[in-house]
Amino acid sequence: MTLTTISEQRSHGGTQGVYSHASSATNCTMTFAVYVPDHAPSETLPVLTYLSGLTCTHANVMEKGEYRKACAEHGIILVAPDTSPRGDDVPDTPAEEYDFGKGAGVYLDAAEAPWATHYRMRRYIEDELPAVVAAHFPVDTKRASLFGHSMGGHGALTIGLRNPGTYRSISAFAPIAAPTQVERRREVFARYLGEDRAAMQEYDAVALIEAGARLPELLVDQGTEDEFLSWLGPEKLKAACEAAGIPLTLRLQEGYDHAYYFVSTFMADHIAWHAERLRS
Amino acid sequence: MTLTTISEQRSHGGTQGVYSHASSATNCTMTFAVYVPDHAPSETLPVLTYLSGLTCTHANVMEKGEYRKACAEHGIILVAPDTSPRGDDVPDTPAEEYDFGKGAGVYLDAAEAPWATHYRMRRYIEDELPAVVAAHFPVDTKRASLFGHSMGGHGALTIGLRNPGTYRSISAFAPIAAPTQVERRREVFARYLGEDRAAMQEYDAVALIEAGARLPELLVDQGTEDEFLSWLGPEKLKAACEAAGIPLTLRLQEGYDHAYYFVSTFMADHIAWHAERLRS
Repeated sequence: MTLTTISEQRSHGGTQGVYSHASSATNCTMTFAVYVPDHAPSETLPVLTYLSGLTCTHANVMEKGEYRKACAEHGIILVAPDTSPRGDDVPDTPAEEYDFGKGAGVYLDAAEAPWATHYRMRRYIEDELPAVVAAHFPVDTKRASLFGHSMGGHGALTIGLRNPGTYRSISAFAPIAAPTQVERRREVFARYLGEDRAAMQEYDAVALIEAGARLPELLVDQGTEDEFLSWLGPEKLKAACEAAGIPLTLRLQEGYDHAYYFVSTFMADHIAWHAERLRS
Repeated sequence: MTLTTISEQRSHGGTQGVYSHASSATNCTMTFAVYVPDHAPSETLPVLTYLSGLTCTHANVMEKGEYRKACAEHGIILVAPDTSPRGDDVPDTPAEEYDFGKGAGVYLDAAEAPWATHYRMRRYIEDELPAVVAAHFPVDTKRASLFGHSMGGHGALTIGLRNPGTYRSISAFAPIAAPTQVERRREVFARYLGEDRAAMQEYDAVALIEAGARLPELLVDQGTEDEFLSWLGPEKLKAACEAAGIPLTLRLQEGYDHAYYFVSTFMADHIAWHAERLRS
């Protein structure tokens, strides 16, 4: 578990770092960002992992997410992984197909060739990355939470739903909540997973809830002017949570779209919400 | 003074816009960003202009600067112009010469061919842009302040020093304070301005102060691990301010470098400092 330090810079009374490591989950070198607030030498801090959306790397939220001040105030380590395997050996799609291939790992473990060798972001996020982070950073692994944006919101919801007890809290910005009900998202699933309906359901928050998976509660912000609304399905998430008795705080943010100008606006709110649950 | 709206997005309870216009100062199309907090229909707001550093466009601070929350809280409009003329007609240098040509207008009016036709950022920032902003946004032009980073800190200091009474307050992050004392900066000046020592002095904050220019006070943040320290000269600025009786608050920030991770850390502080002076 050798970690290579790409950069470390002071910011908001902490250290923003970028690191890489050889990943056995994805069979390639993976890069991720970690923000560590200043803390006492022996102290461990709770850890909040942010999953990014389509086309993103670790860098988008690191540059545009405005999370450092809130993390420093609450004493929370923030981890921002990449969204897919990377490297010349990793199969990809043409650049115009931005929602499949590199930058679009969908937080699933692919079953189909040629994707299955590298596109295993589920086990990377669920298993390998937390172990790497625990080995190299002062985290209290018992106090972990997860959130994300868009495809990363999908990741946070589905990983949270499939792993009850692992995360103290789950939240999302404009998550893709019911991908198997969207033709294009189903097509991407089929290419990664094959025409395996059961496998697809494991990567669909609404389907997981309908199948009995539960979260203690859920915070979601959604812009009303989001240009990807038809992919996201917040109303389906709302209905599923209501039927399942999951307390969902769904905040419709008037006039906001899908961009980081939206995410950054509500970032400090989400971090404070997680902090309450991580620090209790 | 036709303004073209490139984008407008909700963020932090206001609108982050990007606009372009035909500039007579620079003889090209100029792009700038404006953040307008929500306000009463008839209300005008104070305006704070941020000048960016080498290689930047309007977009760097817009994406990485973390200014919107503080601007919304204090009710301040923030304007972020580009750092040079742009377009295929505008002469440039090879990409490796990043500190001269496009992205490096140095907030001066060039006198030498081929630069003089377009590289007139001084009159753009001092005269044209404020008029364009006043014509299209709800600003109270009597309540204007100026700040900037690196080359933009140089711009804020020198424009403030040459225009007493125009700005309520001036501050800077890691400004280039005494460029005529740095060989490479003097070389760039000579190519823009010719070997005109008097002209160069107008673009050197320390020289302006030594020649009698004054500011009522000055706030500067400077990282101790800044990789461009030898270009910046904070100690020369300190000495000049002391000799001139200019109250300078120079905060040396331990471990911080020159990046936006540094700027964004102290951005809210600077906005609050300007707000006190703009709202009084």
